[in-house]
Amino acid sequence: MPTLHQHAFCPHSRFVRLSLGEMGLAPEICEERPWEREERLLALNPSGTVPVYLEDGAAIPGAGVIAEYLDETQGSRKDGAPEGRRLLPAAPADRAEVRRLVEWFNVKFFDEVTAYLVTEKIFKRIMPAALGGGSPDGAAIRAGRTNLRYHLRYIGYLASTRNWLGGDALSYADLAAAAHLSCVDYLGDVPWDEDEAAKDWYARVKSRPAFRAILADRLPGMTPPAHYADPDF
Amino acid sequence: MPTLHQHAFCPHSRFVRLSLGEMGLAPEICEERPWEREERLLALNPSGTVPVYLEDGAAIPGAGVIAEYLDETQGSRKDGAPEGRRLLPAAPADRAEVRRLVEWFNVKFFDEVTAYLVTEKIFKRIMPAALGGGSPDGAAIRAGRTNLRYHLRYIGYLASTRNWLGGDALSYADLAAAAHLSCVDYLGDVPWDEDEAAKDWYARVKSRPAFRAILADRLPGMTPPAHYADPDF
Repeated sequence: MPTLHQHAFCPHSRFVRLSLGEMGLAPEICEERPWEREERLLALNPSGTVPVYLEDGAAIPGAGVIAEYLDETQGSRKDGAPEGRRLLPAAPADRAEVRRLVEWFNVKFFDEVTAYLVTEKIFKRIMPAALGGGSPDGAAIRAGRTNLRYHLRYIGYLASTRNWLGGDALSYADLAAAAHLSCVDYLGDVPWDEDEAAKDWYARVKSRPAFRAILADRLPGMTPPAHYADPDF
Repeated sequence: MPTLHQHAFCPHSRFVRLSLGEMGLAPEICEERPWEREERLLALNPSGTVPVYLEDGAAIPGAGVIAEYLDETQGSRKDGAPEGRRLLPAAPADRAEVRRLVEWFNVKFFDEVTAYLVTEKIFKRIMPAALGGGSPDGAAIRAGRTNLRYHLRYIGYLASTRNWLGGDALSYADLAAAAHLSCVDYLGDVPWDEDEAAKDWYARVKSRPAFRAILADRLPGMTPPAHYADPDF
């Protein structure tokens, strides 16, 4: 059975779980603590990071690489899978636009927002001190929150000029954006009232069945805001 | 005519130029100074970075996105293009391994090596002070050099266990690795004598015709070491 090695509050893992869910796949979930640098995980992925997707003896590491793999093995298959399963559009230039946005969220949004907020508020709390744990850095949190306001406006701009962020149909672009936002939203850090279009778009993504399992995950001793798991906000 | 917006000493631009060269494509080259944040470039790529590939009115931004676009529009076309033009293997799991390595070099090697050395020694030299230019930071240079030794060993390990870095055939993995190494090699910072397998592999990649134009680029007032443009070292 396919297995996803992941962490419940790693945004890249959430992106892959959402993608698998949209494709109707339910692999076994194996929760990892990548900061422990276990040999077992390093053997699956030399960079030691999650997510890693295991299927038929092959270890597919990294959010972007897994997305391409799933598109090739699931999304575009010709055996009668419904078209809605495809999370990349058909035309090369349209696919490029979705991939641009996936990278935008998985790299740029991560570097400027999620890495600051999730590292400081979640990972530093659960990692042992010797492996990087400790008190959150207020300056890093402020930087993440400031950057988030610009990103939220960009999401609102995309959502108000297109049907979905990457074009006419739901795509990897929406799932990448929503994966990162969901981690930050658990912390109560998304200023939803600043952008109505972004909020409406997120409510649409959040109400999809694939989102349910993700919104059910909880961190011990840390309660998300009341709207967090409510599909209607 | 297709156009590549790029910078001669940006490793991601070099990766795309090598890929285009291997595919027999010779777009117009438009040299950019991304640190000036010109509206013209931001209109092509909202993140303001190079490379950006322009074709048929579509702007395809970012090394990874361009590689996928070229694979879809050139590499895998069925109109008689030689198989050797394909820079990703055929099987999904093999493609995933090449993509893993492309990300390894374009993200991890970049963050740990190229960004330090090329930013400190090249970009800080050519950027105006107000936009980030200035004296190189010795600690950053030392960090880049230390990290490079580990990466060179990994390249040597791959090169001694496979025909090319990503598998049996030349692939995007080789071009990504060689693009980053070529920038660092211009600075004389690659300790080639530490890994014979890595050196032999690089000599093979460097001798390909697609590499010629890249090795001909020069920075005013900065001469590369004698072996830099010599295909036989």
